[in-house]
Amino acid sequence: MSHSHKEHREHAPKEVSFFVITVSSSRYSKMQRKEPVIDESGDVAKDLIIKSGNKIIGYSLVPDNKLLILKAVVDAILNDKVDVVVTSGGTGFTPSDITVETLRGIFDREVEGFGQVFRNLSLEQPEVKSASYLSKATAGIINGKVIYVLPGSPDAVKLAMEQLIIPEVGHLLYLIRSTT
Amino acid sequence: MSHSHKEHREHAPKEVSFFVITVSSSRYSKMQRKEPVIDESGDVAKDLIIKSGNKIIGYSLVPDNKLLILKAVVDAILNDKVDVVVTSGGTGFTPSDITVETLRGIFDREVEGFGQVFRNLSLEQPEVKSASYLSKATAGIINGKVIYVLPGSPDAVKLAMEQLIIPEVGHLLYLIRSTT
Amino acid sequence: MSHSHKEHREHAPKEVSFFVITVSSSRYSKMQRKEPVIDESGDVAKDLIIKSGNKIIGYSLVPDNKLLILKAVVDAILNDKVDVVVTSGGTGFTPSDITVETLRGIFDREVEGFGQVFRNLSLEQPEVKSASYLSKATAGIINGKVIYVLPGSPDAVKLAMEQLIIPEVGHLLYLIRSTT
Amino acid sequence: MSHSHKEHREHAPKEVSFFVITVSSSRYSKMQRKEPVIDESGDVAKDLIIKSGNKIIGYSLVPDNKLLILKAVVDAILNDKVDVVVTSGGTGFTPSDITVETLRGIFDREVEGFGQVFRNLSLEQPEVKSASYLSKATAGIINGKVIYVLPGSPDAVKLAMEQLIIPEVGHLLYLIRSTT
Amino acid sequence: MSHSHKEHREHAPKEVSFFVITVSSSRYSKMQRKEPVIDESGDVAKDLIIKSGNKIIGYSLVPDNKLLILKAVVDAILNDKVDVVVTSGGTGFTPSDITVETLRGIFDREVEGFGQVFRNLSLEQPEVKSASYLSKATAGIINGKVIYVLPGSPDAVKLAMEQLIIPEVGHLLYLIRSTT
Amino acid sequence: MSHSHKEHREHAPKEVSFFVITVSSSRYSKMQRKEPVIDESGDVAKDLIIKSGNKIIGYSLVPDNKLLILKAVVDAILNDKVDVVVTSGGTGFTPSDITVETLRGIFDREVEGFGQVFRNLSLEQPEVKSASYLSKATAGIINGKVIYVLPGSPDAVKLAMEQLIIPEVGHLLYLIRSTT
Ligand SMILES: [Mg+2]
Ligand SMILES: [Mg+2]
Ligand SMILES: [Mg+2]
Ligand SMILES: [Mg+2]
Repeated sequence: MSHSHKEHREHAPKEVSFFVITVSSSRYSKMQRKEPVIDESGDVAKDLIIKSGNKIIGYSLVPDNKLLILKAVVDAILNDKVDVVVTSGGTGFTPSDITVETLRGIFDREVEGFGQVFRNLSLEQPEVKSASYLSKATAGIINGKVIYVLPGSPDAVKLAMEQLIIPEVGHLLYLIRSTT
Repeated sequence: MSHSHKEHREHAPKEVSFFVITVSSSRYSKMQRKEPVIDESGDVAKDLIIKSGNKIIGYSLVPDNKLLILKAVVDAILNDKVDVVVTSGGTGFTPSDITVETLRGIFDREVEGFGQVFRNLSLEQPEVKSASYLSKATAGIINGKVIYVLPGSPDAVKLAMEQLIIPEVGHLLYLIRSTT
Repeated sequence: MSHSHKEHREHAPKEVSFFVITVSSSRYSKMQRKEPVIDESGDVAKDLIIKSGNKIIGYSLVPDNKLLILKAVVDAILNDKVDVVVTSGGTGFTPSDITVETLRGIFDREVEGFGQVFRNLSLEQPEVKSASYLSKATAGIINGKVIYVLPGSPDAVKLAMEQLIIPEVGHLLYLIRSTT
Repeated sequence: MSHSHKEHREHAPKEVSFFVITVSSSRYSKMQRKEPVIDESGDVAKDLIIKSGNKIIGYSLVPDNKLLILKAVVDAILNDKVDVVVTSGGTGFTPSDITVETLRGIFDREVEGFGQVFRNLSLEQPEVKSASYLSKATAGIINGKVIYVLPGSPDAVKLAMEQLIIPEVGHLLYLIRSTT
Repeated sequence: MSHSHKEHREHAPKEVSFFVITVSSSRYSKMQRKEPVIDESGDVAKDLIIKSGNKIIGYSLVPDNKLLILKAVVDAILNDKVDVVVTSGGTGFTPSDITVETLRGIFDREVEGFGQVFRNLSLEQPEVKSASYLSKATAGIINGKVIYVLPGSPDAVKLAMEQLIIPEVGHLLYLIRSTT
Repeated sequence: MSHSHKEHREHAPKEVSFFVITVSSSRYSKMQRKEPVIDESGDVAKDLIIKSGNKIIGYSLVPDNKLLILKAVVDAILNDKVDVVVTSGGTGFTPSDITVETLRGIFDREVEGFGQVFRNLSLEQPEVKSASYLSKATAGIINGKVIYVLPGSPDAVKLAMEQLIIPEVGHLLYLIRSTT
């Protein structure tokens, strides 16, 4: 990669198609019981995808369950229309938080800098500051598609989407799909 | 983890009990020879624990020896009164620095963001700047307790304690001990 | 490591000897076809080494090929005159980028903070910003020598050399070669 | 585990429910083209399950594709009726063989002795002998269920089923589901 | 290592000093309640050590608890009189079996062939046969000492001690302590 | 891999080209001092290659030095005429034995069954028996070529060459170079 970031961004696809997955046992239980579910972090992701001129292919809500997380992500990646999967939830340190460990097992390649840069930006948020080290947010590549693994907090999703994902996802897709 | 950091901090234990371990072959040798030992980094950790309204359960001084480091940390974690272990020393790149490699082998889970956020803060210290990349400081979880693995420099201990550990350790304990 | 960074820097060698390796299939092909090759990132590295009062022992240009990267780096480290190897290129996310994965396999120890601190500094560059997470730049230690694994962009090489490598490489060599 | 194997076998479930997955791009292509597919290894597995008094819950045929293998195995494990998944194919050393690497990424725990003992038995088969080292057959545990990852050869499936899986699978299920 | 096994065995220490650790929550609970404890696997190990002309330095009984296993093994290795530690129990697939995973975290080097060869020998025992693949028995080296991690069954301990440990442990100590 | 081993062996190349590398600090020192060097294990490998109708492309002798082992193996693999590399020495447990750890770092894929099957065969040799677990012999694949990593004992080299390598190496080359 010796060309400039500017040139790469010019080659990036103009519209990127997202699949959004919320990982939350509490919201999933409500859904199972047919109660109204407010999924604020999922809504933030969807809003920002639309507002930035990109596309939403689908959405799902799964509990903090290794197999259901795997199933949701594998199904999303197998969908030919999907370029990028964004998950939200399960990236912290409660015993039930397993999204990062689960998805790392299936990445072709981890985008190891994503979590670090995300924590840097979080550290500067007045309401997060030192709590930034309590997130394991990361990203990875599977089969020419990108998976972003974000925390469950709506503010964290907003920060990651606005500062890191929307500005660079087309660039990253261009890189991972390049043939030379 | 979808609630706010603010709410989590409110649920955190009000007083946290620490065990402090200094890892330094030179100070350990002095102690073995009954010479006076000045352990500045250990003293900084202890002072800040007390001043922040938390508690010190115990302290030990061990050399840069894999088995003695393991023994000190395992004993501290087995102590029912201890919530958090802070080690200082052995996180750099001299051949004798082995604290990080040793303790990673026994973590249930690594708090992978801790070292990164600590290096970010160090980078901004005028007397550290680029030397921030020469530290492998990290943190991990064993059996519902937190182990912070800090450098041997008193300034590094002060920075980590004031900016990262004291503000968030109760929050992190709350998360790793939560049952839902 | 309990002494101050200041003291360590005073003990560091005054002149450090570098070997520069550019990893680029496109420039390598031109060289093979006897066409003129402009290797801007290699030139930036060499200029900054000289200007900072250090020494260049040699230079090579290799394609994005696991075995040729290994050969170039192993040969450079086996050269008794060489203290430090700097590679440039192949640290991104195109399928041909393999420098980081290749060299990690032979590190005695990874300088895990280097990539993180480098991405922090990149994040603050107006022309990089969020693209900072698209680099896997890292560093490692083999046999008492340091290998820095930098991106192929001349600006990235300049940033890493000026802000991180030249200020600390002597310090790091002092640490990894210390006997106590 | 200090009781005898004999006692454990007595506690094992009397009937075990299997899901059989054949991994073969060539047979999958035929199926996609509506041509007749002979899946000898799948048939051997199914026959031996029935003859041993156990049960078949389902069967699927997937190509040597990471995502389709993951999907098939995750779906099988999510099926409440399934105790054990047996895959056949993709455990060798052609570039398309990826079943073992794929499934290792999602095991909770690997049954590391299975592949070794299987190769021991293969070594004694006159038509396999030294070729026994060319198989990466393995087994693993996910969520209280067992996944056996067998080669694509019908003889290998027969050997593994008769000598290792049918005699011990109930025993292994008993162990992984025990609560003390 | 190019000399013959015969020569090596001649250089091996004539008497080797063992520490025996039984890992069993049920026997540990009995001991805690002051009830009589029969520790058959521990007794088998001790008998065979004595009968073979070697020495027992100590014995302990710990539950299937990561920290208590670590403490027992670290203390045994720190004992200057101890050459070899033998643990028994916790090498299978019940959820409480954690001895292998725990001790792997602290090995300097794993003796990766030990478990395999042990399973080969088990496979030939009429009362074990295919159950041989249900053991994760292994061995490792820490600080010039050997740790054998055996199953909890007395027959398994007898097999490993008689066929693998007593015949070779002096040879292995000679190798790991050699200075050329 | 669903075809029979017999068919595969028929497709295998009729003549395979080997590069032999002996890893031995003592023999290397003699060579450096211009003393006569008897390299029995290297000679055994070369004899068996010739007698089996295969070809030797080259030979080298290196000490137990990570960088010189890497250099020798990388150079051999880069040689277009070479199909297979056989190393002998450095697979045991003296502190200087590092061949296995070094080469694992550069394998594209490990032939994980090779070491196991080799230890099985060694276990049956009257002069090896239980000492079979003291070898870490293994094999791996790099760039469509096979690297066998054998012990330094001439008997071990003979056993591996006759029983495992010569009978299957063509078969394995056929598999790793197959394009479907
Ligand atoms: Mg490039
Ligand atoms: Mg949650
Ligand atoms: Mg120190
Ligand atoms: Mg196949």
